[in-house]
Formats: sequence, structure tokens, C-alpha cells
Amino acid sequence: MKVNAEIITIGDEILIGQIVNTNSVWLCNKLNEMGVWVSKISTVGDNEEQINQSLKIALSSNDIVIITGGLGPTKDDITKSSLQKFFKTGLIKNKEVENHIKNMFSKIGFSYLPSNENQAYILENSKLLFNNYGTAPGMWIDTEKKSIIVLPGVPDEMKGIMNDFVFDKIKIKFKLPFILHKTIIVSGIAESLIADTLSEIENQLPKHIKLAYLPEYGKVKLRLTGLSSEHEMLIAELKKYCNLIIEKLPKKNIVSNEDLKYEEIICKIFKEKKITLATAESCTGGYISHLITSVPGSSEFFKGSVVSYDNSIKTNVLGVEKDILANQGAVSEECVIHMAEGVLKKFEVDFSVSTSGIAGPGGETIDKPVGLVWIAVSSKNKTISKKYRFSGTRFTVIQKTTNAVLELLRQVVLNIE
Amino acid sequence: MKVNAEIITIGDEILIGQIVNTNSVWLCNKLNEMGVWVSKISTVGDNEEQINQSLKIALSSNDIVIITGGLGPTKDDITKSSLQKFFKTGLIKNKEVENHIKNMFSKIGFSYLPSNENQAYILENSKLLFNNYGTAPGMWIDTEKKSIIVLPGVPDEMKGIMNDFVFDKIKIKFKLPFILHKTIIVSGIAESLIADTLSEIENQLPKHIKLAYLPEYGKVKLRLTGLSSEHEMLIAELKKYCNLIIEKLPKKNIVSNEDLKYEEIICKIFKEKKITLATAESCTGGYISHLITSVPGSSEFFKGSVVSYDNSIKTNVLGVEKDILANQGAVSEECVIHMAEGVLKKFEVDFSVSTSGIAGPGGETIDKPVGLVWIAVSSKNKTISKKYRFSGTRFTVIQKTTNAVLELLRQVVLNIE
Repeated sequence: MKVNAEIITIGDEILIGQIVNTNSVWLCNKLNEMGVWVSKISTVGDNEEQINQSLKIALSSNDIVIITGGLGPTKDDITKSSLQKFFKTGLIKNKEVENHIKNMFSKIGFSYLPSNENQAYILENSKLLFNNYGTAPGMWIDTEKKSIIVLPGVPDEMKGIMNDFVFDKIKIKFKLPFILHKTIIVSGIAESLIADTLSEIENQLPKHIKLAYLPEYGKVKLRLTGLSSEHEMLIAELKKYCNLIIEKLPKKNIVSNEDLKYEEIICKIFKEKKITLATAESCTGGYISHLITSVPGSSEFFKGSVVSYDNSIKTNVLGVEKDILANQGAVSEECVIHMAEGVLKKFEVDFSVSTSGIAGPGGETIDKPVGLVWIAVSSKNKTISKKYRFSGTRFTVIQKTTNAVLELLRQVVLNIE
Repeated sequence: MKVNAEIITIGDEILIGQIVNTNSVWLCNKLNEMGVWVSKISTVGDNEEQINQSLKIALSSNDIVIITGGLGPTKDDITKSSLQKFFKTGLIKNKEVENHIKNMFSKIGFSYLPSNENQAYILENSKLLFNNYGTAPGMWIDTEKKSIIVLPGVPDEMKGIMNDFVFDKIKIKFKLPFILHKTIIVSGIAESLIADTLSEIENQLPKHIKLAYLPEYGKVKLRLTGLSSEHEMLIAELKKYCNLIIEKLPKKNIVSNEDLKYEEIICKIFKEKKITLATAESCTGGYISHLITSVPGSSEFFKGSVVSYDNSIKTNVLGVEKDILANQGAVSEECVIHMAEGVLKKFEVDFSVSTSGIAGPGGETIDKPVGLVWIAVSSKNKTISKKYRFSGTRFTVIQKTTNAVLELLRQVVLNIE
């Protein structure tokens, strides 16, 4: 009943750590949503032997294999020629694709070259998956009960072809079960204590429902996953176990009963309450503002931010007194309080947050080590500040600070701090 | 001569697309640097059969296998029990680890539970890789000429153990060749035209040097990779081919002859020229500021940012006239020019950039579609503005805008626009 898929990503650039494999993340998400179980992700180099060996292994235990990457016009792109050998098939020029490539090139004023003509060829045993977003065509290959889908590695092109054709074709060919997830986000309790608290519930779970623990900075995601052909029953079962878990844990620590990012949780609360927000950021350098504005619709409640990286901006724009900077320094309780209150007034918002810390690797002093961070949350009624000592790289400190800020903001807005 | 490694990442959370596999990126980078060739990355679920099947395949063609994930204290963590069966070995309690876990827990005021005690056990056929950063110990297993390294999945713990012990142990056990890369970043030319221009050079390349093309938004990275036991000769060869490539391409289009991110290139230029920068961001929402401040030492030249998400901030903080917003709107040439000039004055910097656009998916009007973006770069002498129409998701539009801004800034500062 389970329909299994393997994703094979091709490209030396991933194996040498030059780029992150974000295509797989997107594909896994989307396939899961529609009831396809991704059993494995393999990443191999631009190497014929490896591509074909991986495909052989993937086909031995999966119904669907999705291959991305290596369809470009240059010499290191060998996916098509490798598959040609694997399937012992030929290449055939597709007129529609050829015209499309010519059109794209004339539009941007680039000239059409022989290397581009190669992209107009598709495998003889394949059906064309037209690429509306770029020059490399996708291909769909059927072998008995299995399907192999070959797509370009450029994220927007891969996603575009999946959305335009592939999801529909998968739904038609395969009888899919339902895979459903329920996520509960918990903050402020150790993973092992949660597991201990929930062990009784975990032992009761039926075989088709699994509970996973996913620790992240400052929080743990609990994820129930169920697989079944009975849609309604599965929804009811997951709801039941989700409620059992929520009842067992302290209310204050439950951040969300949906799989949302912190910034999405904040957006939801602020929109519901029709209140407004601004940030004053030093060590986070605009990261909090970036996360919040990455959520569609955030302009409804988020007015903006002052990134006061230089002390002169803290003084001139946010109104932090020079005395505070001279005596307590920028990384101090007084400074973050004044930053938060300054931006609250200047931006005329209901709530504001501020950060100041030593993200490292440089900038450490004797009494202010790398990882020392002050944060504050301010509203018309009060300002709350907190001190942290985070470990990790520069970006880890920024991320941990951001999570701490958003959690404190959540608590203050919901009056549970 | 080549020492091959495979990375096996364990965790359902990756296969359902809940988290990005950043551990592999870091590992690939570091292993490559030291001369270990990563031949494959496999990601499998928390599933004994899959873990052991992948390990078997990995061992058949690699010298080193690095396994991460599934060593936590909860039920879904089954890496240790799977490996126990694979190697037909037992588990043995390690006193040092047990004391360490008890200490960690008492420090943060959490209680030590039976599930934590499980973490104090290591495989009988393994050597302990002490985890100074968390509770799950790492393990090193030797089988004849091969090594299997088992590490926790929490990024900071995995990295810490690799840095503390594993890299040194690999260097001692294996005779490593040199793997070297040279990267050239090119902007404003199509990948296929670059490939055509460089085809002669590419045909001359010796077998141990490869050229790869990595297209990204608005730019193409050209990467030469060489593998040899002759360190000095390889450096000379790569330098030679790198220079040949640079000579063949228009100078204006060469962004960098090092593998740097755009923000790192900007940091380098600004530090060298001892000039200062500020940003005024609307549609990018602080992303440009975040990228720049993510580079260590950016506080030397970056004074800060105003994220003017709401029009009132554009007016009140940046001084954009209300008439412009009323007549031309926020997404207009006049608005970005005034934003850039406003922040230039207010923050007293040498250069400033600004952005305003419709990142989507909402916010579209008849004459202003999703993807429409205006950017500007300002200095005391002049302000240059540009209009773009980007495709893609909200975040893609933000990323493309950011790259366009940083490229325009680079050209303006270097006087080559």
C-alpha cells in the first residue's frame, strides 16, 4: 500500500559542500503531503557509474525515483548521457523545446549556441515534461510499475515542473495512502524529560503512528506521523494522541500545536490581536526582521526595524544615552532596554524587541565573553530584559538569540511570562 | 590513492522535509579541505533495515563512513541498536560519559533519568569519541582498512567531536592526497556562453583537473577541482588554468577569483577602502543587513539599517516625502532614491543601498505585479537606481533582489558600472 520514492540528487557541488541541497527538502515536503513516502535521499557526483549504480539500487526498492541535476548545457552535465546508457536508449530532438530555448535566448539578448541545442534532446524512452522556467527539459520514464522522473537542478525550474505536471501524473498512476503529521512545539523542557513524561502515551501508540522528537535551539518539536488508507480515522487518531500529549505537558511550555516556525507563530498572534511590532537589532543584525518579513502578510503588523550596528545609530536614531554606552557599554541591560523603548516610541508600535551581544568570533572583552547577549521586549506598560550566554558559531549565536527573543515576545504578548 | 568517504545521515525529519541537512554541507567542506573525497551522501530514516543496508553498500566502495543522527535518548533513536546488530557486538557502559551526563544535567537543573543512562553506553567494538558539547557520545569503529565514525546529529555536537578528535585520527590512519579548488565568480553572462568561450581551455585540462559550472541567481561560479599527491605542482597548475579562464572573460564580469559569498566580497572591498555602508530596506526586510552582519568583522564598516516596512517609517525615519508615496507609490524609482539618500544622510555613511518591491505572493496591483523591484545605490556624488522584474517565490525574489543590490553596489564602489 505504501508508495515509496527515492530522490537522487546529482552534482559535485553538493559533495564538496559548496551548496545546500534545498531541492530535496522541498521535494520531501511535497511528496509527503500527497502520501508518497520518501525512503531515502542519495546525493552523488557528476559521475556515470555512480549515477547508474544509485538508480539501480533505488529502483530495487522504490516505486518512484526522482533524479535532479546535471541537465545543464556544459560538459560536467552528464545525467542525460548516463541515463541513455542505463536504459540503452537513444536521444531525440524535441522541436517544441528547441523553439522554446531559442525564444528564451532571443528575449534576453543571448546568442543560441550548439551547447544549447543539446538541451533540446530528450531520452527516446521518455515523455517530455516541459520546462516553462528554463532551458533544460524534464523527462518522465515508465518501466513496468515504476516511474523515473528526471528534472533540472535549478530550484525554481525543478519546482515549476513538479507543480505543472509531476504531482498530477503521480496521483493518476499510483494509489496513494494518506500520510499525516501532527506537530507540537515545546519550549523550556529537556528532550529526555519530555520523553519520560510521555512514555506511557508512546507505548499505547498503534503501529501505524510514530512519535519523533526533534530538538532545536531552545525548543523540541514532537511529531506524530500516521500512515493509513482510512483518512477520517487517521485524522481522529492523530487528534486524540495529540491531545493526550498536550494534556500531559505544562501549558506554559507548549508553544504551538501546529508545525510552524517561531516567526509564523508570532505573525499569527500579532494578526489575531491586531497589534503592531518593530525591532531594534544590534547583534542579530536584521535577522529577526528578515525572518518576520519572510512570512507573507507580515506587513499587516510589522512596521520595521532599526539595525543599530554602530553605536552612533543607537544614540542618534534610537535615543540611547551616550552615558549608558560609555559606562555600561552596548552589551548591557540598560542599552537593550533603551533600544527597545526607543524603537517603540519612534515607530509608534504596540510591542518592540531589542538585542545586543557579542556574536563572535571577535569583539570579546574580559568581562564580556563571546556569546554574551542581552535581549529586551517592550510595550507601553513594561519592558522585560534577559541575559544569556550562548555557545556556538557566530550564526548559531544569532539564531539562538533570535529564538530567545521570539519566545520571550510570545510569552509577553500572551501574558504568560 | 584517493580516500573515499560516504556520509550517512539518519533521521525521518530530513526525509519528510522538516529540516535541512546542514551537517552534510559542513562535513563535505571539511573533508574535502583535508583531501578526503566524499563520493556520496545518503539520508535514510530511523529504520534498522535501511541503516544497515546503507552502511553495507557504503562500506563496499568507501574507506570512511561517517554516520550522524539517531543517538538521542528517545525511542525513535535507534542508530546504536541497529549498529549493534550490524557488527554483532554488545554495549558497554562508559563511566566517564555517565559522569559527564550527570554533571550536565545537574548544572541546568534537569533530573537524570533512565533514558539518559542509555546514552552512557557505547558499542563494545568502538573507541569513545568524547562529546564535550552534549550528552550523546561519538564512536569510532575500525574494521580492517576501513573506519566507521558515529556521531550525534545536533550540529554543534557533531562539529565539536569532529574538530576535537576525528580529523586528527583520519590524518593518522589514511594517506591523503591533496584536493584543491579554485573558484571564479562571473556575473552578467549566460552559462552556455561562458562554456562556449572556455571550451578550448576545458579541452586542454589534464585528467586530474575538472571544471564545473554552478549557476546561481545572477551569477555563475566556475570551479576548478584538482586532485594530486604533488601539492606544489597542483597549486601551480590550478593557478595557470584559473588565469587562462580569467583572461578569456570580460574583466567587468569577473566578480571574484575566490570562492566568496557576495556579502564577503562587499566586506572585503569596504574594509580595504575604509569606507562605510548603511541599508534602507523595504521588500528585502533586513535580509541584506543580515547577510552583511553575518560576516565577522562587518562592524568595521557597516553602520546599520532602517527596515522601513511600513510607509510611515519611510516618511518619518528616512524622510521620503509623503507626495512621492501618494503619487508614485512605495515601489517606485523616486521612493528608492529618497530611501537611499535618506539613510546615507541620517547614518552618515559613504555608501547606501535601498530596496522596494512586491515580494509576493500578495500585494500585487494592476501596474505593479509580484516580482517588480526597484533598487538604488547612493553615495555623496550620485545615486543610481535600477528596475527589475524577478520571478519565483517570496524568498527567491528577496534573494534575487539582494544579489542585484550587492552586484550594483560592487560596480558603483569599484567605478565599473
